[in-house]
Amino acid sequence: MFAEPETTAPAMTAVLAAVLTGGPLSRVALARRLGLSQAAITRAAQPLIKRGYLRELAATERSGPGAGRPASPLAIRPDREFFLGVKITADELIGVVCDLGARVRAAARRPLTGTDVEHVLTELGALVDELLDGPGNLRARTRRLGLAVSGDVHRPTGLVRYSPFLRWHDVALQHRAEQLTGLAVTVENDVKALTIAEHWFGDGAGAESFALVTVGTGIGCGLVVDGKLVSGAHGVAGEIGHLGVDVNGPPCHCGGRGCVEAIAGTDAIVGRARERSGRPDLTFDDAVALARSGNVRINAVFAEAGLAIGCGLAAVANLVGPARIVVSGEGLAAYDLFDEHIRTGFERQAFGAAACPLTIRPLPFEQWARGAATVSIQTFVTS
Amino acid sequence: MFAEPETTAPAMTAVLAAVLTGGPLSRVALARRLGLSQAAITRAAQPLIKRGYLRELAATERSGPGAGRPASPLAIRPDREFFLGVKITADELIGVVCDLGARVRAAARRPLTGTDVEHVLTELGALVDELLDGPGNLRARTRRLGLAVSGDVHRPTGLVRYSPFLRWHDVALQHRAEQLTGLAVTVENDVKALTIAEHWFGDGAGAESFALVTVGTGIGCGLVVDGKLVSGAHGVAGEIGHLGVDVNGPPCHCGGRGCVEAIAGTDAIVGRARERSGRPDLTFDDAVALARSGNVRINAVFAEAGLAIGCGLAAVANLVGPARIVVSGEGLAAYDLFDEHIRTGFERQAFGAAACPLTIRPLPFEQWARGAATVSIQTFVTS
Repeated sequence: MFAEPETTAPAMTAVLAAVLTGGPLSRVALARRLGLSQAAITRAAQPLIKRGYLRELAATERSGPGAGRPASPLAIRPDREFFLGVKITADELIGVVCDLGARVRAAARRPLTGTDVEHVLTELGALVDELLDGPGNLRARTRRLGLAVSGDVHRPTGLVRYSPFLRWHDVALQHRAEQLTGLAVTVENDVKALTIAEHWFGDGAGAESFALVTVGTGIGCGLVVDGKLVSGAHGVAGEIGHLGVDVNGPPCHCGGRGCVEAIAGTDAIVGRARERSGRPDLTFDDAVALARSGNVRINAVFAEAGLAIGCGLAAVANLVGPARIVVSGEGLAAYDLFDEHIRTGFERQAFGAAACPLTIRPLPFEQWARGAATVSIQTFVTS
Repeated sequence: MFAEPETTAPAMTAVLAAVLTGGPLSRVALARRLGLSQAAITRAAQPLIKRGYLRELAATERSGPGAGRPASPLAIRPDREFFLGVKITADELIGVVCDLGARVRAAARRPLTGTDVEHVLTELGALVDELLDGPGNLRARTRRLGLAVSGDVHRPTGLVRYSPFLRWHDVALQHRAEQLTGLAVTVENDVKALTIAEHWFGDGAGAESFALVTVGTGIGCGLVVDGKLVSGAHGVAGEIGHLGVDVNGPPCHCGGRGCVEAIAGTDAIVGRARERSGRPDLTFDDAVALARSGNVRINAVFAEAGLAIGCGLAAVANLVGPARIVVSGEGLAAYDLFDEHIRTGFERQAFGAAACPLTIRPLPFEQWARGAATVSIQTFVTS
């Protein structure tokens, strides 16, 4: 985080992370939670207070019988530092500035005319300037930028190995973006970024295990087991979109059959709605409108999609048993058409106690950018 | 493990576990692997050598340029202590005695006339006596017994909460078995026990992530992620048998539809084979014989079962990305009928790099008892 020879860096990281994600917390509570002595907590907190990242709230309780000092809870100072986050999609950049507590303080978008790396970088530079030079003098307190990209991303080196939507192969995005902006950049897969945001600041906060499922063109999943993001021994994990839930179902672009994504991805829904309506020009929004107006055939397409997603969620629950599953994504703008069927599929297929709490909610696109900003907060805290 | 005030118990546990599962290992290699100093390794190994659990092999290499001492690898003394393991099924007890290296040194079985707890305990006592009083004077060096039971087992208290096959509810098995035998008893779910055996002494040794899938009347799965057995926030995990792979498939006793177990469990196979052959008295062995003789309809039953298992394995690979999957179990006595179809389903449905190495092999029933013995070795090493 920063050089601090007289304090152990791991304890500082642990204290800052605990207060960020679960604060305010007294030193007593921190000591218990982190398995450290109160003296170690005090030593680790001191430089964080001095540098303005943490502050002491008014004392609310004494630490126990005979304890001499009141236990003033520690809280973050959210304004101490700001973090940029940008989600790169095939047709636009979505950017936010978050404070240390991951609250969005500014947001902006820029359309892309293509996914050529040079063009994307030029627009990224303009977006960063727009966000930092707007009201509030954010630039002075912003040192870090998180970038979220769909596809295969190698976070330690900031390399985008392969992004199908962007048609990128082996793009050294971290390096290029650092040169461009002068900020410290972290690059992460978009679903993982969103999972980290949910695990640190959302419904997954404090959960030892937790799954986030995103529904859109692709259907993705971030899994936290034992407090850590599962990344897979061969670099693949959370591929809920390619679980086979219908052995006789439609073929999928992955080579599988009856994959969740081949039934419930937005492209699959559009394809099936076109077939059943006989209208080859139907859009996703048209399909939603038809279903809402009571068209039985198109309603069935959404019902089948919801059921497939529910079966996929049940597979996650049956195999790893997360404490909670959050389902979100731009596909859930049609939430009303899905919700009941997702729950039906999940409840039918989840085994006994595996039927964990399910949260289903739409995902404003800014949340992807907030995920990217969260990743840069995480890099700051743990580095 | 045993009182040893002058040594840190965690380091002793770590050294013994590392040598047991990956030895022989030099002190240099142990220090590197465990992140400890060589001095700490030497301090931790000393009492283990003194008490006869470890021994030094002849020096094979020097620890590096300028190093003064030869690096003698440490190895276990397998004969130092023996461990009993018993698998309790509905119709028999299967028992083994293993050495410290989990090698089976004696085996015996006793039929059960029922699953009444008192009857099972009486037979368990007789089986333990038979195994320990046989040749080799094993009793003098055996202090521990592991018991493996299918169903919901709470290992910390040794309580069998629910075992459908045994029709047991809340049986304090550890307590009763300790009173009966005078041995220190550990009780574990049978699939978990087998997974621990595979992770410590089998194909999963050394893997950070790994899955064991058992195929029989039930279809189960033990999952190791980040070196630890996944147990599920709500006590359910690894329920591969209830993944829905065919949304229009047969109903399952769990309330789901098209579950792997409803297509590929041995009872499901028998049921489907009876239907298609029109022979209501057909047994599993009859079905295997018919399929091997070239009966197309019965072959199709096994093909569908293999495909369903393969899809289930792919779901494990897609979601958690284990380094390797081992498929075993008594159902695979008909291995030749399954193997190709399991692989076809797996390869079709595993997403890209998730298609990890697959080991498919039959499971001699003694292996379940060896799993139970391994659990008692694990309790010994980590306690």
